[in-house]
Amino acid sequence: MADDRISLVFAALADPTRRAILTRLTEGDATVAELAEPFDMSQPAVSRHLKVLERAGLISRTRRATARLSHLEAGPLREVTTWLARYQRFWDESHERLDELLAALQGDRAHDDRNGTDRR
Amino acid sequence: MADDRISLVFAALADPTRRAILTRLTEGDATVAELAEPFDMSQPAVSRHLKVLERAGLISRTRRATARLSHLEAGPLREVTTWLARYQRFWDESHERLDELLAALQGDRAHDDRNGTDRR
Repeated sequence: MADDRISLVFAALADPTRRAILTRLTEGDATVAELAEPFDMSQPAVSRHLKVLERAGLISRTRRATARLSHLEAGPLREVTTWLARYQRFWDESHERLDELLAALQGDRAHDDRNGTDRR
Repeated sequence: MADDRISLVFAALADPTRRAILTRLTEGDATVAELAEPFDMSQPAVSRHLKVLERAGLISRTRRATARLSHLEAGPLREVTTWLARYQRFWDESHERLDELLAALQGDRAHDDRNGTDRR
C-alpha cells in the first residue's frame, strides 16, 4: 500500500462517527438514511463521512433503485493492521523493560571497563 | 481506550513523516537533531510532529543533558490493532463473497417461494 493510501486510511479512522459507520456496515450494506438514523445526524453530514471513507477505500457504493448503498471494504483495514504488526515486539512492556535493563547494564559495564573502575 | 484517544492515535498515524519517526524510534531513543537529520527537516518541524505523537501517547520524552530524548511507546499501537482486529472476519474476501452468494441464493429462493415460481 502506498504511503498516501495508508495516510488516507488512518485519517479516515481518526473520527469516532466514521468508525461507528464502519461498525454498522459489518451488519450489512446500508443507505445514507439508514446510516444517519442511529447517529442522529443529517444525511449531508453522513454523506461527507462516507466520501472520506470511500476515498480511503474503506467502503464502496452501489445504487439500489433511488438509494445508494454503502458496503464495507475491509481490505485497507488488513493492510494498516499489517503495518501496525511491525511494532508488535515493542508491545510487550516487560520485554521492553528487560531490553532497557540489559542495555543499561551493558552500558555500565562498558563505562567501567573504559575507566578501569574497581567494581564492588 | 476512550474514543478520543483512539482518534488521536489514528490521526497521529495519518502522516508519513510521523510514521517514519516511529519506525526510527524502534532502533532506539533519539534526540530532535537525530530525528531531523535523515528526514531533511528543520528541528521545529520535527518538534511539531513529536508533539502530536506525544499527545497520542505514542512517544514519551525525557531529558538527557541539554537534549530531549524521544522514546517509542507502543501501547497505543497495540490498542488500535485490537480495534482493527474486529474486522478480521471481513478481510477474507473469498469468505465475504461466499456469504454474499449464499444471501443472494437465499433471497432468490424466498422470492421464488413467495411468487410460487416454477423453478427449472
